[in-house]
Amino acid sequence: MTDVSTNMRLKLPVTCLILEIILIILFGALVQYDHGTDAKEWHNASHGDYNNDFYYRYPSFQDVHVMIFIGFGFLMTFLHRYGFSSVGFNFLIAAFALQWATLMQGFFHGMHAGKIHIGVESMINADFCTGAVLISFGAVLGKTSPVQLLIMAMFEVTLFAVNEYIVLSALGAKDAGGSMTIHTFGAYFGLMVTRILYRPNLDKSKHRNCSVYHSDLFAMIGTLYLWMFWPSFNSAVTAHGDDQHRTALNTYYSLAACTLSSYALSSLTAHDGKLDMVHIQNAALAGGVAAGTAGEMMLTPFGSMIVGFLAGIISVLGYKYLSPILEEKLKIQDTCGVHNLHGMPGVLGAIVGAITASFATKEIYGDGLADVFPDVASGDIQASSQGVRQAISLAVTLGIALLGGLIVGFILKLPVFGAPPDTICFEDSIYWEVPGEEAAHHDDQLTTVRTEESEKLNS
Amino acid sequence: MTDVSTNMRLKLPVTCLILEIILIILFGALVQYDHGTDAKEWHNASHGDYNNDFYYRYPSFQDVHVMIFIGFGFLMTFLHRYGFSSVGFNFLIAAFALQWATLMQGFFHGMHAGKIHIGVESMINADFCTGAVLISFGAVLGKTSPVQLLIMAMFEVTLFAVNEYIVLSALGAKDAGGSMTIHTFGAYFGLMVTRILYRPNLDKSKHRNCSVYHSDLFAMIGTLYLWMFWPSFNSAVTAHGDDQHRTALNTYYSLAACTLSSYALSSLTAHDGKLDMVHIQNAALAGGVAAGTAGEMMLTPFGSMIVGFLAGIISVLGYKYLSPILEEKLKIQDTCGVHNLHGMPGVLGAIVGAITASFATKEIYGDGLADVFPDVASGDIQASSQGVRQAISLAVTLGIALLGGLIVGFILKLPVFGAPPDTICFEDSIYWEVPGEEAAHHDDQLTTVRTEESEKLNS
Amino acid sequence: MTDVSTNMRLKLPVTCLILEIILIILFGALVQYDHGTDAKEWHNASHGDYNNDFYYRYPSFQDVHVMIFIGFGFLMTFLHRYGFSSVGFNFLIAAFALQWATLMQGFFHGMHAGKIHIGVESMINADFCTGAVLISFGAVLGKTSPVQLLIMAMFEVTLFAVNEYIVLSALGAKDAGGSMTIHTFGAYFGLMVTRILYRPNLDKSKHRNCSVYHSDLFAMIGTLYLWMFWPSFNSAVTAHGDDQHRTALNTYYSLAACTLSSYALSSLTAHDGKLDMVHIQNAALAGGVAAGTAGEMMLTPFGSMIVGFLAGIISVLGYKYLSPILEEKLKIQDTCGVHNLHGMPGVLGAIVGAITASFATKEIYGDGLADVFPDVASGDIQASSQGVRQAISLAVTLGIALLGGLIVGFILKLPVFGAPPDTICFEDSIYWEVPGEEAAHHDDQLTTVRTEESEKLNS
Repeated sequence: MTDVSTNMRLKLPVTCLILEIILIILFGALVQYDHGTDAKEWHNASHGDYNNDFYYRYPSFQDVHVMIFIGFGFLMTFLHRYGFSSVGFNFLIAAFALQWATLMQGFFHGMHAGKIHIGVESMINADFCTGAVLISFGAVLGKTSPVQLLIMAMFEVTLFAVNEYIVLSALGAKDAGGSMTIHTFGAYFGLMVTRILYRPNLDKSKHRNCSVYHSDLFAMIGTLYLWMFWPSFNSAVTAHGDDQHRTALNTYYSLAACTLSSYALSSLTAHDGKLDMVHIQNAALAGGVAAGTAGEMMLTPFGSMIVGFLAGIISVLGYKYLSPILEEKLKIQDTCGVHNLHGMPGVLGAIVGAITASFATKEIYGDGLADVFPDVASGDIQASSQGVRQAISLAVTLGIALLGGLIVGFILKLPVFGAPPDTICFEDSIYWEVPGEEAAHHDDQLTTVRTEESEKLNS
Repeated sequence: MTDVSTNMRLKLPVTCLILEIILIILFGALVQYDHGTDAKEWHNASHGDYNNDFYYRYPSFQDVHVMIFIGFGFLMTFLHRYGFSSVGFNFLIAAFALQWATLMQGFFHGMHAGKIHIGVESMINADFCTGAVLISFGAVLGKTSPVQLLIMAMFEVTLFAVNEYIVLSALGAKDAGGSMTIHTFGAYFGLMVTRILYRPNLDKSKHRNCSVYHSDLFAMIGTLYLWMFWPSFNSAVTAHGDDQHRTALNTYYSLAACTLSSYALSSLTAHDGKLDMVHIQNAALAGGVAAGTAGEMMLTPFGSMIVGFLAGIISVLGYKYLSPILEEKLKIQDTCGVHNLHGMPGVLGAIVGAITASFATKEIYGDGLADVFPDVASGDIQASSQGVRQAISLAVTLGIALLGGLIVGFILKLPVFGAPPDTICFEDSIYWEVPGEEAAHHDDQLTTVRTEESEKLNS
Repeated sequence: MTDVSTNMRLKLPVTCLILEIILIILFGALVQYDHGTDAKEWHNASHGDYNNDFYYRYPSFQDVHVMIFIGFGFLMTFLHRYGFSSVGFNFLIAAFALQWATLMQGFFHGMHAGKIHIGVESMINADFCTGAVLISFGAVLGKTSPVQLLIMAMFEVTLFAVNEYIVLSALGAKDAGGSMTIHTFGAYFGLMVTRILYRPNLDKSKHRNCSVYHSDLFAMIGTLYLWMFWPSFNSAVTAHGDDQHRTALNTYYSLAACTLSSYALSSLTAHDGKLDMVHIQNAALAGGVAAGTAGEMMLTPFGSMIVGFLAGIISVLGYKYLSPILEEKLKIQDTCGVHNLHGMPGVLGAIVGAITASFATKEIYGDGLADVFPDVASGDIQASSQGVRQAISLAVTLGIALLGGLIVGFILKLPVFGAPPDTICFEDSIYWEVPGEEAAHHDDQLTTVRTEESEKLNS
């Protein structure tokens, strides 16, 4: 696993510059403003400016954007010597992935006369795809170089777009908040990658795989932004009107219920009843993941709360009992426990979505059925068939994620990307200039200065 | 005061799980989507999707949501050993309170044919009610177990809904930003609770009742989010159009003026002219509290600035001179000084609201009078009567808050909730697994590793 | 440079109180609600509430607001002993500047029958003007008293409004995101001020002019909020509809491309390939600055990415090679390197804007041309003339900024404002009550308490 050198001086700049230049060329050749963004197009038609999709979706987009950069970035700062990398590599790979995702997603479902049309909805979708990459980043956190992460992002975005196309377009499943396409996909892809990149001697870096007091507080910034804005995440690309409204509301209650069950289980599973920050930072979010598919459906607040309640329980139990088993028996070193936050709750969300879809009727949805299940509304299929579509989509997602992770894992294992050795994982200083701690002699100096000057100054 | 045991292993899980299960059952029995959230209902009527209340209020909701979870949560992290509890208990009781508030507020003013109808406006109101609970939490910060806080939240939400019903529905007062119903209520309720829970030996924990450098910076995150989003808070449930617009603008200028007077007074009241972080973190927010009632009225920017200016002065003086007296003479141990940030500025806001309402005329408001003072617009009452309504509402709020706090304080005093002993207040480690500080030997180890490996790596 | 006394007890309160009282009086005399904010005015006309400008611009306003208070405030907390001042003085001068800007900007382009009309657009513009002041604050960071900063803000806001009037109204240039009026102006004004305030003995405070691990993480909060919300910043005051939509999209891609080139150059210019937090925190934002003028034009995503890509390269090279030269040769002590983040990228943005404007045609913009270039659309001028207008505006902005900074620098040099001596720059404790670090004896005490009580408690 150990590479010849972790010096990034040529590897990282060359990777970044080549990728960005390729992106710019492809954007120049393929990408155009869409109807709501192009000056000529928008002014050709007659409609009030308030009908521009910007006003329906941009506030949600900004919330999603905060989740991607602050939410994921700071959630991972819990490690005491990996804060720069957590926030900084998150920033780098997200900035790359959202550009690449624009092309890949556009290629599969945004082409108009040979051009990819973009606007606020494609921006949200690009951020969504980026989210899956960041989930996988959580699984390998602390054990990869930035070049490995960029390579992983490139392949994962591509496979994400393929899977998304199969699930949403070919199979006709619904997954607005991405329980399947984002969370299940990102988690199992990342778990397979970290399995292939298994490090037998990782315990030599064990002392750095832990938090300190303030790093846990930084991580709570990430947790809370994810928690607060998850209603926007799940509702960002649902249909206008009641659909966005309902999705946000369902997610809000799912998360609230999840928080209470997470706290309960965290205390219950500790022998001294003390709450564990790992559970609070992560499990309390599982309710958002689990409401990702059914959130736009008529799940009812009651149903949403049950889903969230179960997700919190599953997630804490996963952190407590399943993760150690996965590491020991299956050699899956899952730094952030993405299996517990995104994997199992994502599968739960997919199942809930399949069940809820099976019971969709015209009585419940009225004319709104066409927004949520167009094929059921048009009479092409039965609601139960929609449920089957959802279930098949879960299976397809798991398959593509695991197979993709397998292949990409082996690619990342090539000893040319500057991965850290087992002895220096979870450590910023191999990739970053790290300042010293607040050195004692500075304060001594300062105290002297202060004493000397304080009398004449504060007069 | 000292309980037999602070071990939460059974108490906290049982409390959380029972409360959540009750909530789920009641939601199943009573709660329904409202007109803008229900698929069938929304599609039954004919209106553009841009008319869905979601688009008028959801951005404001998200800002309020950030204030509740990040704003209040981080504002209280100023204590150097209570950051986990500040953010974490804030998170727990807010997640509980918003669900319970949905039911209680719905019961009092959201029932339609036996069902509680919910949507974005009820979500904002639930967050508002939660805000009052978090204000009370500030008064007892560091001295209560999470179980006590959940019990307090349960009773306080209930009484909040009763008071809100009396003030807004029965008395017909206006209080969109909650100077009375949220701030005055939350503050005086909390002050009475902390009075009843008086700890004579709290000075044994005095060395932990203070901040460190970085904890004060974390607290500034909370302060600034509260400050920035207060215009959204006060305008979130006002009428569409000019009302939301005007309320946001009034609050913006009130806060700006308040900031300057807070800085001025903070420096003026220190013998060496140095600014005190306690004042900056708290008093600079008083302008938002004080604009909570009159913000939606034609207060003018000029009036708003005067109100904010006074609120900042009152608040700093309260922290400096009144709080020590309250603690010594009245035995009110107000950890966060909620009397200075929410209590007095809330009362000021109520008075300003009563005065401003008294001068409302058709000349000033035009047809907009019906939005702000429907009973005055319809000719049912005089503007001066509206002023009287406002004043009575303040008295009622104070009465219910103090009486409620008295009763709830005695309930919380029962020695079964696992409160911390006087010697271990303001301390995370009795309820949380707390990691060590960044241990010196880790860095030593690291340095050794680095020295050994650096040459072969950075080649 | 050293003042007689840095004690702020009279200077700061008197300055704050006099300024605020003047503001209140002028607001009382001159300021009125605008059409969308005034109850009577709004209800006089017939239009749906969704047409109120509040709903088009308030979400963007809130994003801009976060950039001003959290973004700028925390970006500057990278210094290890200057966090209170960075966030706290940022807060103070922003709260003052936005009020003063309302008057100055209103005076120059918001007067209606002798009154200044205000609403959400004027609030955004006031925040924009504040942004320029905060950029200048970055240049002098650590070397000025709060009174100096308030005086600087007063003059700079006034000159900003003059320059803005000349550029946007008299010359008819376009600059929605302020590459010229905000970034170029703020940077060169601040650079000239810091040149005049040159401190020959600043190296005596050199040991405090650096970061520690956690201060760099706090700074990343600022960076990411600026980065995420820059699309809102550039689009906040553009025309409704496609213009806002397109500007946000262009800025999004410019920033993403800029991030990749910043990381590449940061690693490339370090001899060991390690990333430098200074570059990541700052240079990655240059893409937002550089898209400030042309963002609303039909720049295309392709063009935006090229601009961002170049801005990142220029900015890192500036930090690495140009800043040391400016300090040594030109005696410009630019604490935050605003020349690299705002100065050069601002000039780049202005040039890109001039070029893009020159190529504007009816073929490309259709009827949307009237939104972006009204004088070109009406046939009054050629597109090439619009390009000349843009270029002249850059020159005017540079001239007013440098001349203004020169004069204001000399005013600030008067030895009455309590500036810190060269030996105590970059230090909170002369203006703030600063708590101690987490003292060892506290934890010792705590450990004793814990050991004593832990057995009886956790039973």
